[in-house]
Amino acid sequence: MKAEIIAVGSELLLGQITNTNAQFISARLAEVGIDVYYHTVVGDNPLRLEKTIEIAQSRADLIIFTGGLGPTKDDLTKETIANMLHSELESDEIALRFIENYFKRSGRSMTENNKKQALVLSGSEVLENRFGMAPGMAFERDGQHYILLPGPPHEMRPMFENMAIPYLLNKLGKKEVIVSRVLKFYGIGEAELEFRVQSILAEQRNPTVAPLASSEAVTLRLTSKAHSVEEAHRLIEPVEKQIRMLVGKFIYGIDEETLATKAADLLKTKDLTIAAAESLTAGQFMAELASVPGISSSLNGGVVVYNEKAKVEQLNISKELLDQFGVVSAECAIALATQVKKKYSSTIGISLTGAAGPDPHDGEPMGTVWIGIAIGDNPVKTFKLQLSGSRNANRKRAVNFALYYLIIELQNADLDTILN
Amino acid sequence: MKAEIIAVGSELLLGQITNTNAQFISARLAEVGIDVYYHTVVGDNPLRLEKTIEIAQSRADLIIFTGGLGPTKDDLTKETIANMLHSELESDEIALRFIENYFKRSGRSMTENNKKQALVLSGSEVLENRFGMAPGMAFERDGQHYILLPGPPHEMRPMFENMAIPYLLNKLGKKEVIVSRVLKFYGIGEAELEFRVQSILAEQRNPTVAPLASSEAVTLRLTSKAHSVEEAHRLIEPVEKQIRMLVGKFIYGIDEETLATKAADLLKTKDLTIAAAESLTAGQFMAELASVPGISSSLNGGVVVYNEKAKVEQLNISKELLDQFGVVSAECAIALATQVKKKYSSTIGISLTGAAGPDPHDGEPMGTVWIGIAIGDNPVKTFKLQLSGSRNANRKRAVNFALYYLIIELQNADLDTILN
Repeated sequence: MKAEIIAVGSELLLGQITNTNAQFISARLAEVGIDVYYHTVVGDNPLRLEKTIEIAQSRADLIIFTGGLGPTKDDLTKETIANMLHSELESDEIALRFIENYFKRSGRSMTENNKKQALVLSGSEVLENRFGMAPGMAFERDGQHYILLPGPPHEMRPMFENMAIPYLLNKLGKKEVIVSRVLKFYGIGEAELEFRVQSILAEQRNPTVAPLASSEAVTLRLTSKAHSVEEAHRLIEPVEKQIRMLVGKFIYGIDEETLATKAADLLKTKDLTIAAAESLTAGQFMAELASVPGISSSLNGGVVVYNEKAKVEQLNISKELLDQFGVVSAECAIALATQVKKKYSSTIGISLTGAAGPDPHDGEPMGTVWIGIAIGDNPVKTFKLQLSGSRNANRKRAVNFALYYLIIELQNADLDTILN
Repeated sequence: MKAEIIAVGSELLLGQITNTNAQFISARLAEVGIDVYYHTVVGDNPLRLEKTIEIAQSRADLIIFTGGLGPTKDDLTKETIANMLHSELESDEIALRFIENYFKRSGRSMTENNKKQALVLSGSEVLENRFGMAPGMAFERDGQHYILLPGPPHEMRPMFENMAIPYLLNKLGKKEVIVSRVLKFYGIGEAELEFRVQSILAEQRNPTVAPLASSEAVTLRLTSKAHSVEEAHRLIEPVEKQIRMLVGKFIYGIDEETLATKAADLLKTKDLTIAAAESLTAGQFMAELASVPGISSSLNGGVVVYNEKAKVEQLNISKELLDQFGVVSAECAIALATQVKKKYSSTIGISLTGAAGPDPHDGEPMGTVWIGIAIGDNPVKTFKLQLSGSRNANRKRAVNFALYYLIIELQNADLDTILN
């Protein structure tokens, strides 16, 4: 079954709102195994809407509409469809009563055009709107399925989830299940990842393997279709194993895990505490870690030492060290990590110092970053980055790299050594 | 000129990401008077992409593509277009050098498929990508304009703004100028703002007045069309004045100003230094302030005191005070702001303490936040928030409110008092 999602509304074409409805519906359809081939957005114009529907009829088995069910003259989705399919619009008793009650409850007076909202296509299944006035509709005509949904996301989402999805599953007599697993990578580019797993990408079928880069990570999504969840997992397993053999060292997590949740998880399960000394990132590393609920048992806190004076005064970094090596140096990163660990009585101290940009800093070019990680009494590990983005992209990537290196170090860490 | 925006990418059809690019491009096109008639999303499938382009060619004068310019086999936008238009792809020297330098700088090895990113349609104007590797393209063929842009928003947006818009204005020989002014509000909801300025919204024509809520602020965008920039400004002026009379006290900035840039500006022009003590926000306030270039002369740094122990040990907050009032209290906020100001020898100390959630904290319900602002030797001002979002929404809003209150205090501050 091939689906097309048509959003109707000039406000979308004017760029006043984003079409989040298409994303929501697509994600739900993917879960039940319905392929979405197109999204279309068209304005409140009957002629262009009609042409859009004609195109959709020529290429889709399921056409889902969002928007254009409201009370105003601009709202013409159901009128246009009724016209095209030579169908009648009739007032739905339940919907009308609901609208009347809505006005009674809110103490406002109902205008004539609100009655228009209760009109539904004759013969369609009416989808109740629990969070607004316009009901939705679902029906089949000439082997094609039509679903009409209201535009406001808080009305559309529960209606789609609770009424349209069951309608579709029922119509499809669906037995198939879809299972996805997302592998998350860091420290490797999208192109290089694809290059390394090209043999798998070339052979993929079930599961399908799709690469995707987000602002945080590069991912591979493995999606299998099967008759049971167990069978779907069995199909994914050997392919995942193959991928891990090829590029496993860049995998930091799966599915909903982020760099921050993974790092927080490792800190918690290993019962470690951390403190940070941040220069160019100015608190962003700690803030990112603190986005994970329950972090307070692991994150003691830390310092933002944005200028040299703060480094010297707050963390006793020696002026000589800074004069000799500069603040953007392995030596400074080591000193910061060591000192903040001690100051906050933590098992781990981590530091970020560098030149965010736009200007060079202390003789180092924009984008140069040093990360220091002190675990227990182990020698402090340092990592150098040479980033090439804008100032704030560099700061964000420095935070992500720090989380990534922390994860790697924690996975490799010998706990006995740390805890002695 | 009628435009269609085609986004290419299966991840959009799977519901993994939202098509925010279409909104951004549409809003900018509306400003320069180009009507967008359709948005289309199609997957990484050459046949369906070709059909989509054919449809667009039959109904649009300007076709803008986003996505599908990357290095992988899935990326096939320019290949498909070249094929359809019997055009050649040739390597762009500048783009290739840029990609090579990118890899050199980041110390990673360039794979063969990265070279594919430097291929451009022969005869097209190459649009430089300052934040990624794939260049954009613009060209005219048979009276239709084609613009190809990369998919990642942080690459697409500056390219569209700085290169595609000038290209279009030039091609259109536009004599009309469009001038926009964005008024930025904080501390007032979108609905209330609209209610208060409803008379202006009802009468608007030139300039148009459009409300828009973003994650940071509520804004009103005034857009006027005229024959000269001066005339456009003259049209905006009286309307802006009217708005400022009605709701001026909620306006914190204009145009590209953010809460962070505005606060940074005030700190700089008033020659003040600041340090922060952050609990629930864990460094996010400082990180946000540090997103502004050149902040190092104003931001001394600060501490993240995530747990009670850190508050006591790092900032000498008395255990008795915390026992009596709790960490989520005006008293704690005052003590934190005062101490961090002293510790970092700053003119201003600011503190954020509260219950981010998901659980209550120290007897206070989730969403309760206290902000303390100590300026010079003035009595410390405190502000209480009662937020109702998720944990991280609350943390972000606490940061925004802290910046907003800081701006208000700095605007009202009597400098003589501060500097004595």
